[in-house]
Amino acid sequence: MIYFDNSATTKPFKEVLDSFVTVSSEYYGNPSSLHSMGGQAERLLSQARDQVSKLLTVKPSEIYFTSGGTEGNNLAIKGSALLHKNKGRHLITSSVEHPSVKSAMEQLEQEGFEITYLPVNEFGRISVADLEKSIRNETILISIMMVNNEVGTIQPIKEIGDLLKKYPTILFHVDAVQGIGKIPLPLNKYRIDLCSISGHKFHGLKGTGALFIREGVRLAPLFSGGNQERKIRSGTENVAGAVAMAKALRMTLTKAETGLERMRNIRSMLRKGLTEIDGVQIHTPIENSAPHILNFSIKGIKSEVFIHSLEQKGIVVSTTSACSSKKKSPSKTLLEMGVSETLAESAIRVSLSFENSMEEANTVLAAIRESATQLRKVMK
Amino acid sequence: MIYFDNSATTKPFKEVLDSFVTVSSEYYGNPSSLHSMGGQAERLLSQARDQVSKLLTVKPSEIYFTSGGTEGNNLAIKGSALLHKNKGRHLITSSVEHPSVKSAMEQLEQEGFEITYLPVNEFGRISVADLEKSIRNETILISIMMVNNEVGTIQPIKEIGDLLKKYPTILFHVDAVQGIGKIPLPLNKYRIDLCSISGHKFHGLKGTGALFIREGVRLAPLFSGGNQERKIRSGTENVAGAVAMAKALRMTLTKAETGLERMRNIRSMLRKGLTEIDGVQIHTPIENSAPHILNFSIKGIKSEVFIHSLEQKGIVVSTTSACSSKKKSPSKTLLEMGVSETLAESAIRVSLSFENSMEEANTVLAAIRESATQLRKVMK
Ligand SMILES: Cc1ncc(COP(=O)(O)O)c(C=O)c1O
Ligand SMILES: Cc1ncc(COP(=O)(O)O)c(C=O)c1O
Repeated sequence: MIYFDNSATTKPFKEVLDSFVTVSSEYYGNPSSLHSMGGQAERLLSQARDQVSKLLTVKPSEIYFTSGGTEGNNLAIKGSALLHKNKGRHLITSSVEHPSVKSAMEQLEQEGFEITYLPVNEFGRISVADLEKSIRNETILISIMMVNNEVGTIQPIKEIGDLLKKYPTILFHVDAVQGIGKIPLPLNKYRIDLCSISGHKFHGLKGTGALFIREGVRLAPLFSGGNQERKIRSGTENVAGAVAMAKALRMTLTKAETGLERMRNIRSMLRKGLTEIDGVQIHTPIENSAPHILNFSIKGIKSEVFIHSLEQKGIVVSTTSACSSKKKSPSKTLLEMGVSETLAESAIRVSLSFENSMEEANTVLAAIRESATQLRKVMK
Repeated sequence: MIYFDNSATTKPFKEVLDSFVTVSSEYYGNPSSLHSMGGQAERLLSQARDQVSKLLTVKPSEIYFTSGGTEGNNLAIKGSALLHKNKGRHLITSSVEHPSVKSAMEQLEQEGFEITYLPVNEFGRISVADLEKSIRNETILISIMMVNNEVGTIQPIKEIGDLLKKYPTILFHVDAVQGIGKIPLPLNKYRIDLCSISGHKFHGLKGTGALFIREGVRLAPLFSGGNQERKIRSGTENVAGAVAMAKALRMTLTKAETGLERMRNIRSMLRKGLTEIDGVQIHTPIENSAPHILNFSIKGIKSEVFIHSLEQKGIVVSTTSACSSKKKSPSKTLLEMGVSETLAESAIRVSLSFENSMEEANTVLAAIRESATQLRKVMK
């Protein structure tokens, strides 16, 4: 089986699972307990926090462990809105965000907040000029994703941060769930206040994640309680999960050192090969796109039909994002980019990890070619 | 080492961890993905849901997986308040709830809700008559814990449910985090709308939990996004965690069949032995208390000093709840029960699991006796 659906989720590294098991079975104390078993657990948690913070170039006290990307995004957005609503009730985001940002915004809309959804161009990118124009006195938060999960477009995060230096009271949240490990994100250099990551997207475990909250930035918690995570995220800490995520992040960033080059080569090869197939249209832009995602349509063949055909050849790819794949509605991102509905209904996303090889990619390309030909014949 | 701090957290069962590892490494697909790896993961998740629902005597569609007790409590309380605030803004709870309920209520108070905190008697119990008197037309939710985490008092959950049959529009939430597996909770028979449990309290993993939401009851989500968990709890599901929790719950309820009797005997023995020690005052009531918790003070010896002395003898117990132990403020529950501040500052909680034996309990009792004598001498 060749797994090319790494943007949906990744296989946990063996070392990551091993750490999880060791911590869960040998250091199972509650980090809040006063006794030494509690102390041990607390030290492990704090080591994990140190590691994650170093890898993200920030301070340990700026890392808050969460249950994943959806929690991080909701906490950043709703937590800001709730705490700062007396300062203003306007938020800005893009029209191609992940549902965990989009729906959080929509929920706030129902509560009386106003949201600006910035359009994107044909490459899936927002314009910083548009963004500046949409800023109001009442704007409290801007949330823009680093890398789009459907087509891989990189948003101008640094530029937005630079612009926002003129607007010091506006919080800037970045959903880096798809970007982390694939694109550099020097949080110490960029003007970013809040940034979410999710463990299972980089070979960590499902149910783990972290939110970076810059020192001085205040949020209302979604979970109140025993005041864990400096009161921002109560609940007995998933120590083993945090340790596992720290390890997954370290391993991923280490693998990125040599892996990114290989990933780029694999994707170039796939891109080139795909353009040679009759009826293929590639949606992922050449510039400003993350190296692990390639989104394309094969005209006249519905996504579901195509992925099932590939699956019979032992190849796992996806229609669009995992979240919306069950709805069977065409990709929102593609439609926003101006892709026609018909073409969007044929969209396929392949997404790589550092574990994938050129050899696998060759097999996948050959299979795509074969499936395309087979299915075309059937359709005629 | 003898671990008698099972109300803070428990050691995961080996079988539970094994299941977690198998699911994480072999069935790591995203349950929302359309391909067969997604399908496999979805089936595992749905099996876990079936199991948990059967064990709790409810329908699979009434079980929502969460990241733990704190999330379940916050979701039940804030989710109800947010959705039903136009019906009314009054909630009722007790003065001895876990911080995850208490702080959620306090946060709502800041948002303009009114909260009634019911007092408890010397045994830590609320009165159903008091509760009825506090009901108003604007009451939307009542949240009462099943078993208190500090002293083990069982609240009159069935009686409250019976009373509430007269008030069909008021939601009833039960924090069953400490009760589950120790006290029967026939959700199919009781008039309960919402009920939270937490995996790590019954040998499951930290970061796992479930909220029962009775069919027809609606909540606003804390996490919006990809619409997982029937839109109530978005986010890529922690499939392995859910499977692990289902297994832990099954094993716990099976062990309870013979284990409860043994647990009761152990606690009786401890209670009897403790009363014979000079200066001991037991706070856990004889009637209406869960079998796993025994809370007592040794006059004149501060909790921290005592637990460290026991720790040197290889015995792990706690001062009060893990959550508040770092604050070093005396137990709120004890104060509410009318225990003096001085005595509350000497409180010790031992909490058992089905894995603990009478032999261990005898060792613990002897150690308590010895530590008490030693420390008394030092103090004089
Ligand atoms: C860009 C993006 N943001 C957020 C999420 C949500 O993360 P999680 O699955 O950990 O809730 C995902 C993936 O599902 C994503 O791709
Ligand atoms: C009664 C009670 N409710 C809720 C919780 C919170 O559960 P969790 O630690 O899973 O967040 C706990 C334990 O910490 C508890 O004892």
